[in-house]
Amino acid sequence: MTHLDDLPLRDDLRGLTAYGAPQLDVPVRLNTNENSYPVPDDVVEAIGKALQDELRDLNRYPDRDAVALRADLAAYLGHGLTVANVWAANGSNEVQQQLLQAFGGPGRTALGFTPAYSMHPLLAVGTGTEWVDGHRGADFTLTAADVVAQVEETGPDLVFLCSPNNPTGTALPPDVVTAVLDVAPGMVVVDEAYAEFARPGTPSALTVLPGHPRLVVTRTMSKAFGFAGGRLGYLVADPAVVDAVQLVRLPYHLSALTQAAARAAVAHRDGLLATVEAIKEQRDRIVATLRQRGLTVADSDANFVLFEVGGDQRAAWQALLDHGVLVRDVGLPGWLRVTAGTPAETDAFLTAMESL
Amino acid sequence: MTHLDDLPLRDDLRGLTAYGAPQLDVPVRLNTNENSYPVPDDVVEAIGKALQDELRDLNRYPDRDAVALRADLAAYLGHGLTVANVWAANGSNEVQQQLLQAFGGPGRTALGFTPAYSMHPLLAVGTGTEWVDGHRGADFTLTAADVVAQVEETGPDLVFLCSPNNPTGTALPPDVVTAVLDVAPGMVVVDEAYAEFARPGTPSALTVLPGHPRLVVTRTMSKAFGFAGGRLGYLVADPAVVDAVQLVRLPYHLSALTQAAARAAVAHRDGLLATVEAIKEQRDRIVATLRQRGLTVADSDANFVLFEVGGDQRAAWQALLDHGVLVRDVGLPGWLRVTAGTPAETDAFLTAMESL
Repeated sequence: MTHLDDLPLRDDLRGLTAYGAPQLDVPVRLNTNENSYPVPDDVVEAIGKALQDELRDLNRYPDRDAVALRADLAAYLGHGLTVANVWAANGSNEVQQQLLQAFGGPGRTALGFTPAYSMHPLLAVGTGTEWVDGHRGADFTLTAADVVAQVEETGPDLVFLCSPNNPTGTALPPDVVTAVLDVAPGMVVVDEAYAEFARPGTPSALTVLPGHPRLVVTRTMSKAFGFAGGRLGYLVADPAVVDAVQLVRLPYHLSALTQAAARAAVAHRDGLLATVEAIKEQRDRIVATLRQRGLTVADSDANFVLFEVGGDQRAAWQALLDHGVLVRDVGLPGWLRVTAGTPAETDAFLTAMESL
Repeated sequence: MTHLDDLPLRDDLRGLTAYGAPQLDVPVRLNTNENSYPVPDDVVEAIGKALQDELRDLNRYPDRDAVALRADLAAYLGHGLTVANVWAANGSNEVQQQLLQAFGGPGRTALGFTPAYSMHPLLAVGTGTEWVDGHRGADFTLTAADVVAQVEETGPDLVFLCSPNNPTGTALPPDVVTAVLDVAPGMVVVDEAYAEFARPGTPSALTVLPGHPRLVVTRTMSKAFGFAGGRLGYLVADPAVVDAVQLVRLPYHLSALTQAAARAAVAHRDGLLATVEAIKEQRDRIVATLRQRGLTVADSDANFVLFEVGGDQRAAWQALLDHGVLVRDVGLPGWLRVTAGTPAETDAFLTAMESL
């Protein structure tokens, strides 16, 4: 039998394992920050109709530029954005990979601040971009002065910021993005996958876009929209950035079904985003309850909560799983991450936590 | 206004334009080798039902490994293949990009033989892989001796073969693949996007897979299956190759909708592939008619025909477009490529050709 090591694999991939949380079939899955609410019936009906209209002509390639979907996303975002400011792909992972292919790659560097979204360094490796691991404060915070110093020291071709940050949950202070833009020699990518869950008064980096052609904000429909299975991520930036990613995008990367389903979902956003407030309530309940119990918990602007278990997080992860609750061990010693879902899921999680 | 050149784009992308044939709305579109036949009603109904079953749970991420779909594709192919031999992605472009990320990349080289599928060199550039442009005989043929000599000279990390070749249409002689496997130091990728249209007696490289763990055969559902809008490509290889691409694939790259629709299409392959014989008839009719008119035409094992126009191909392309027929100028001086579609489309094309 041939083993992976017998193949002429790239040296920098040797010994790695494929990225991904365990997909276990347990009653309460709070490990991948999915939206726990299924798609409402009326939206199911609307998406189904939109898909049906595409099926007869699936023999034809889809609109390569996904113009109608991008226009819909721009209208959803507001801020005076148009189709020329938006680019969409199969999840924000693909959008970020395209950004690395266009602005990173061999001989170039990307700087991020661990712990953050763990795909960022993997996407860099996958595109031949050197990854530079910056650092955060002990409480996971990132001040403007701290980030600026690291950007000036590294001179990266891309800076990856994450707001709200995953896995910590906290949004960046508004001045960090503008401070980085002032000194960064390359592109500045702000991953806002969880922006819709932010606490009141948390500004999006979209507000900073005018006059900053090197700023890119990435978003996803996987979280607030509850559209993880549909795979739709997008970026918002100066039109020149959209021109750039089109040089590296795969032709016809976005299927006719994806485009149609995502358009229907955006059109019915009121029904889909109605879950956001309920999820934020559970998020705040988890934060408050764990703190009442004496645990250290990071501030959360997302649909998940990072908390200190007071011991080995691997043992705690297993103990929760034994109670039928799957959370995420993000590799931070002593910490675990839990998704905020339905009230019943919160009940199950908080009860299981009493067993620790 | 910011221009692309004002951004810190990679140097090797400067001056490039985005890949893709013009998407023009004309009566007869024979430029992208789509299957001209729409999806039959009963298959539309089956795919629609399969999609409907996914919609309520779109809030959940899809099966990251697309196990059920890969098993279905293995069963379709036969040859004793199983799920472990198959990997699927959003079009064979993405499969080939993953292969370049795993086995190519910075400091590595890929060898292909122009004219062939024009995305191969672009995928190499996009992954930082050096592209080496091999050469064919004057009549576009590729003999085993010729290919072996070029592989030995270059020592590439990947060899890209294309059978049937696009844009010429001709399948490789069976001995070429085995001869290359004997001398190639790296991976050998055989792009069989059009394999289902091959003339009788044309063997697939799938027959050579046993005992050749460095051979990869890529396929697509865009052509014979008439599923271009669904975006589903796949590779067939030793299970170790599947392990390798999983190190670089984006997590959840294949949506729940894509997986469900493709499974339904594979299940109803009899209805979809029923068009293949009709298309081959039109292909053979185009070849025979143009030859009768004294034009030089490449042998075709595909759903398209490459023919010499006897003059400037750009002027001929425009003249055909003026008659409502869109064909493809693949950049070969004096040649054009036309897709074989319905009998009526062939009529329109052959009539328009009389105007040249």
